[in-house]
Amino acid sequence: MPFVTIEMLPGRTDEQKKALVEKVTEAVSETTGASKEKVYVFIEELRKDHYAVGGKLLSEE
Amino acid sequence: MPFVTIEMLPGRTDEQKKALVEKVTEAVSETTGASKEKVYVFIEELRKDHYAVGGKLLSEE
Amino acid sequence: MPFVTIEMLPGRTDEQKKALVEKVTEAVSETTGASKEKVYVFIEELRKDHYAVGGKLLSEE
Amino acid sequence: MPFVTIEMLPGRTDEQKKALVEKVTEAVSETTGASKEKVYVFIEELRKDHYAVGGKLLSEE
Amino acid sequence: MPFVTIEMLPGRTDEQKKALVEKVTEAVSETTGASKEKVYVFIEELRKDHYAVGGKLLSEE
Amino acid sequence: MPFVTIEMLPGRTDEQKKALVEKVTEAVSETTGASKEKVYVFIEELRKDHYAVGGKLLSEE
Repeated sequence: MPFVTIEMLPGRTDEQKKALVEKVTEAVSETTGASKEKVYVFIEELRKDHYAVGGKLLSEE
Repeated sequence: MPFVTIEMLPGRTDEQKKALVEKVTEAVSETTGASKEKVYVFIEELRKDHYAVGGKLLSEE
Repeated sequence: MPFVTIEMLPGRTDEQKKALVEKVTEAVSETTGASKEKVYVFIEELRKDHYAVGGKLLSEE
Repeated sequence: MPFVTIEMLPGRTDEQKKALVEKVTEAVSETTGASKEKVYVFIEELRKDHYAVGGKLLSEE
Repeated sequence: MPFVTIEMLPGRTDEQKKALVEKVTEAVSETTGASKEKVYVFIEELRKDHYAVGGKLLSEE
Repeated sequence: MPFVTIEMLPGRTDEQKKALVEKVTEAVSETTGASKEKVYVFIEELRKDHYAVGGKLLSEE
């Protein structure tokens, strides 16, 4: 703990995801005082045909 | 905001999903006063072999 | 099933919430073919001091 | 209701998942008093390249 | 890991919640092979005026 | 989008939470390429009597 869930569209490279979890873990650790080993990060990718803003799926655009 | 997540079994067509996010967005906008552009909708499909009622996976039936 | 979760800021009246779950249930039922009795809706209210856009909590504004 | 979500890494067999939802449903029913038919269980599998502890993805190890 | 989230209505005693997390942890550990120390359980209580089935909030009944 | 949810125990000050959402937003923006204005962060506090590790609620310790 803390547990961090990041929902985003697909398209990021493995390198970007590696940097993402590293930098987010540092940010959480520095500001909350939790040790880095206690920070869990989960990435969830949203499908464009399953995600809508303003009533329109992103895959429709 | 508001953020709406809809979890359901797979099997709906693209047309049904398109109508689903459109109609749900309208319902949320009309009753909460949020503008449609501010309503986010996410669809998540549940796998039959990962979803159980009464202790039994749906894939077992 | 389907299960619908609606996250939004507090401030809506009981009447608005009543209308919200009723209209969303109808929208989901009509477009997915699920009977209304099978539609579950959960409202979750977000705290202004726990919700940020662009790196700024809403309570800071 | 109750609704139970179990997030874990992939790798369990269908038999293990079957036993998992059965035993968890019994545990919830016995301790909360809810009838087994009212207990819903969802399994979600986490990807090793989307899950990090201490700032490191499990797929990096 | 595994992470278990249990959503239910309020009304259970502290003793029931204590038994709930203990029995669920045992059930998950036995069936998945994860050691008990690695099992995390979260309880979330649903408000009756924020939870609807069939388009009707439980608080309306 | 992206949407970031941070679950942690209560006890952080308003200043810590302000720094937390600011630093996490920067980390997400820098590594994913999303503009800061598109990053949403939600904090959720876990109750000690609703959170268990190894079958034991934190409030029991």
